[in-house]
Amino acid sequence: MAQVPLLLTPGPLTTSEAVKRAMLRDWGSRDGDFIALNREVRDRLVRLAGGGESHVCVPMQGSGTFAVEAMLGTLVPPDGKLLVLANGAYGERMAKIARYHRRPLAVLRDPEDRAHDPARLDQLLGTDAAITHVAVVHCETTTGLLNPLEAIAEVVARHGRALLVDAMSSFGALPLDLLRSRITAVAASANKCLEGVPGIAFVIVERERLLACAGNSPSLALDLHDQFLAMEKNGQYRFTPPTHVLAAFHRALLEHEAEGGVAGRGRRYRENLRVLLEGMRGLGFQPFLPEALQAPIIVTFHEPASPRWAFESFYARLRARGFAIYPGKLTRLPSFRIGCIGRVYPDDLRRAVEAVREVMAEMGIASGRPRKHVETTS
Amino acid sequence: MAQVPLLLTPGPLTTSEAVKRAMLRDWGSRDGDFIALNREVRDRLVRLAGGGESHVCVPMQGSGTFAVEAMLGTLVPPDGKLLVLANGAYGERMAKIARYHRRPLAVLRDPEDRAHDPARLDQLLGTDAAITHVAVVHCETTTGLLNPLEAIAEVVARHGRALLVDAMSSFGALPLDLLRSRITAVAASANKCLEGVPGIAFVIVERERLLACAGNSPSLALDLHDQFLAMEKNGQYRFTPPTHVLAAFHRALLEHEAEGGVAGRGRRYRENLRVLLEGMRGLGFQPFLPEALQAPIIVTFHEPASPRWAFESFYARLRARGFAIYPGKLTRLPSFRIGCIGRVYPDDLRRAVEAVREVMAEMGIASGRPRKHVETTS
Repeated sequence: MAQVPLLLTPGPLTTSEAVKRAMLRDWGSRDGDFIALNREVRDRLVRLAGGGESHVCVPMQGSGTFAVEAMLGTLVPPDGKLLVLANGAYGERMAKIARYHRRPLAVLRDPEDRAHDPARLDQLLGTDAAITHVAVVHCETTTGLLNPLEAIAEVVARHGRALLVDAMSSFGALPLDLLRSRITAVAASANKCLEGVPGIAFVIVERERLLACAGNSPSLALDLHDQFLAMEKNGQYRFTPPTHVLAAFHRALLEHEAEGGVAGRGRRYRENLRVLLEGMRGLGFQPFLPEALQAPIIVTFHEPASPRWAFESFYARLRARGFAIYPGKLTRLPSFRIGCIGRVYPDDLRRAVEAVREVMAEMGIASGRPRKHVETTS
Repeated sequence: MAQVPLLLTPGPLTTSEAVKRAMLRDWGSRDGDFIALNREVRDRLVRLAGGGESHVCVPMQGSGTFAVEAMLGTLVPPDGKLLVLANGAYGERMAKIARYHRRPLAVLRDPEDRAHDPARLDQLLGTDAAITHVAVVHCETTTGLLNPLEAIAEVVARHGRALLVDAMSSFGALPLDLLRSRITAVAASANKCLEGVPGIAFVIVERERLLACAGNSPSLALDLHDQFLAMEKNGQYRFTPPTHVLAAFHRALLEHEAEGGVAGRGRRYRENLRVLLEGMRGLGFQPFLPEALQAPIIVTFHEPASPRWAFESFYARLRARGFAIYPGKLTRLPSFRIGCIGRVYPDDLRRAVEAVREVMAEMGIASGRPRKHVETTS
């Protein structure tokens, strides 16, 4: 087996040794020890999101998408209408889920390099009274773009609609205040900025609204209402939870707190981002997004113009030096991504940039400069 | 934290140290190493089930129920009709899933202590031509009952219907031959007799039939067809897989092979069962099932008649001695369960029976004998 690389991706991520070592014990899923651990995880998550007494955390087995689908399928009733804001693959995925559920759907699209405009949303909600729920992605992992969540939440609340947020890649590193922003529900996952391992996700949701959602879900496994009621009864999961993953998540939440919570975690990621951007720009690479829209999570870079560029080769050579990066996901332009989240530090990003420099020399690429026509897009 | 108990449950189970230690590495889910590992897991599972070239393995994030729901939701088309055979909670759960999916449904019920009768099934399939799919639980974890899978499969195949099997708690310990038995699909999980950790399940299914199932699934996350097509394209999961759990599963499959595969694993479990039954009978306890129906997975015992009996106290005292057992799940009769699967050996079961003897003495219970009227039911 080759060297284990540092993961500079949007997740799964590099986690701490202690988080991984928390998985060295087997837990009975109906045993008191595990019930207490799960309880603490749920309570900590509600506090992290500023949920107070009005919100509850319902974990969901699977990836983040399982939690997003559970949120949409359970909270939007069959006679509701969902408006999805989309400026990337994850917004489009929410629209796709609504189509699977055959629910009335509207999609308000923006280009991949533009944040949603609260004024356009305001206008649309003013004209379409059928819309009951609005769904938005906080940080679009497609590009790394940060949407203006607070302004969007203000508009949705003013129109008396419910706001459902996919905060997958921002939760734990960027501020979120469910109560102040009057957000109905937020979905996120253990293995992004909270630095746990993949296998469990969660929805934090207004208790009263969730309790009104019996019979909505088109899926038993993804029925958030049923999952909540069962867990309230005896603290247990309806169906086997990934016990080791939850033990790792518990440990990751302790480490998150020790780092200074959302503020401390966000500070390290912003410094990671600064080092990455400065280093890559120094090599001629150009980020896809203007700095004002760039979240400290993952950066999309244009592919260089050099005819010697080939992503697979670039990937393999960086990989051999101990860094796993990520392919691009833009609809039209060739790109690649480098993440700055997980148990990685500014010095790791410095080493990564140095590795990029070496790989470029090896491949005979003089500069990371993209083709000229690209430069006008951002 | 109290002593880590041996788990005598239907899962999550006690796993080997090496299986847990396989989780001490972070994997990039789109990295070549992980893609190769996942490929090997899938290939090994098809071989274990006697699937040959005609069947493929599609892993599904989440618990076993997620795989069962994915199997039913994807394989039964909206205009199909599902017949569920039920003699316990897991058969009833499949019927519940079909109701969530609003699919035409028939349920053929047997009492919890009786195996399904292939002749009754034959008759029903002869009279109801609308039934396109039959679903059955191989080993009902509710009781520990083994249904006559081969005879059922023969009837279903003769009538030209498709058979979908929940083999959650039998897969890997009891023989299964998809080709010979002409079974369309089987769902199972990593954390039962294969002795992995929870967080991933899978469906092994006829490739051609799966390929015909586009558009059936009412869920994106649980769309087995979509999951398969995406994985065939580049070896990757559509949505983040539980990488650490899969690494543990890979290790568990190597250990399964080293133990002699299904035959070797089954032999150890049968010996565990023999020791458990002999020991508990010696203390007066009575198993719920007649021996002919008892699978070597988990045993349901009637609660003792003694007025000093209290399950919570019994559980806590056994737990303090290092054994976690399981509550009963019978519809009507008070019972409890003790599992004999996982990384546990006949000597562990001997120690467990000895602990039961000590706990009975502590609680002042002279015998495990159940109330008299119970004895006539089995």
